[in-house]
Amino acid sequence: MPSSDSQFAAAALVSWKRVISQIDKGLAGWSDADLQSEVAPGRNRLYYLLGHLTAVHDHMLSLLRLGDRLYPALDEQFIKQPDRAFTGAEPTAADLRKAWTEVNAKLTAALERLSPEEFLERHSAISEEDFVKEPQRNRLTVFLGRTTHAAMHEGQMRLVKPTQSVR
Amino acid sequence: MPSSDSQFAAAALVSWKRVISQIDKGLAGWSDADLQSEVAPGRNRLYYLLGHLTAVHDHMLSLLRLGDRLYPALDEQFIKQPDRAFTGAEPTAADLRKAWTEVNAKLTAALERLSPEEFLERHSAISEEDFVKEPQRNRLTVFLGRTTHAAMHEGQMRLVKPTQSVR
Repeated sequence: MPSSDSQFAAAALVSWKRVISQIDKGLAGWSDADLQSEVAPGRNRLYYLLGHLTAVHDHMLSLLRLGDRLYPALDEQFIKQPDRAFTGAEPTAADLRKAWTEVNAKLTAALERLSPEEFLERHSAISEEDFVKEPQRNRLTVFLGRTTHAAMHEGQMRLVKPTQSVR
Repeated sequence: MPSSDSQFAAAALVSWKRVISQIDKGLAGWSDADLQSEVAPGRNRLYYLLGHLTAVHDHMLSLLRLGDRLYPALDEQFIKQPDRAFTGAEPTAADLRKAWTEVNAKLTAALERLSPEEFLERHSAISEEDFVKEPQRNRLTVFLGRTTHAAMHEGQMRLVKPTQSVR
């Protein structure tokens, strides 16, 4: 029987991977044209939410001290600005699909290598001094927060039904 | 410094309480009439999702072996049937608001009393014999799964903006 804290870390990873795989399932059904659909009238397009989640997860690489970011350039369009506000050169749907897959692969692999103790180490947005006073500001709380963040947007994305067209 | 597994349990509870409180915030803004709004055209009404989450969380009381259920009668309308299919006597919006608050209060209080080791005990839908072979089928994995489930529906619910009418 593994130690209880390794069971906790494993369960958190299972929860994360379930949410990512649910989004992957949606992406396998939506055509690139479908990605231009809004999740509800006047709300974000699937395209934007895919870029948003990719940028947020890419940022987790540095925030959780797991390695260099792969796509920091996505932040401007998909974190700092709302949907349809960005006026620069946009990535294609294919670009975003590729980035989404690469970012989650790198991130999940790095998370799987963390020991339970390493999950409880500080994240990069808090200093070592402050972390002594606020030990709950660790990788784990960020990780659980990003898991529910992804689930929240997945719930919105699943409102769009795939069209029957072949990709 | 608390033990590492108590930090894991505490972090999971923080994540759960954040999602519940986000839904509470939505409910404070929506009028009872707003609850009749669909989250997107042809999709579930807020009223249905509120009943659905209340029923699912009420069921967690028995599934996690935390005490008797408070509102098992909600299952028929809000779990077994899709929105608008139920033909019996429906609870009012006020009934659902009350049930939602009571269920989460009882559930969260019971979860807060669990030790880390108790989180890793089996849930009620698996036998003691099977649990020996599949120790990951514990309260914790159900709890994390229900947290992302609630977050997923919260993401849908937040698509409905409150009207300006006074409740």
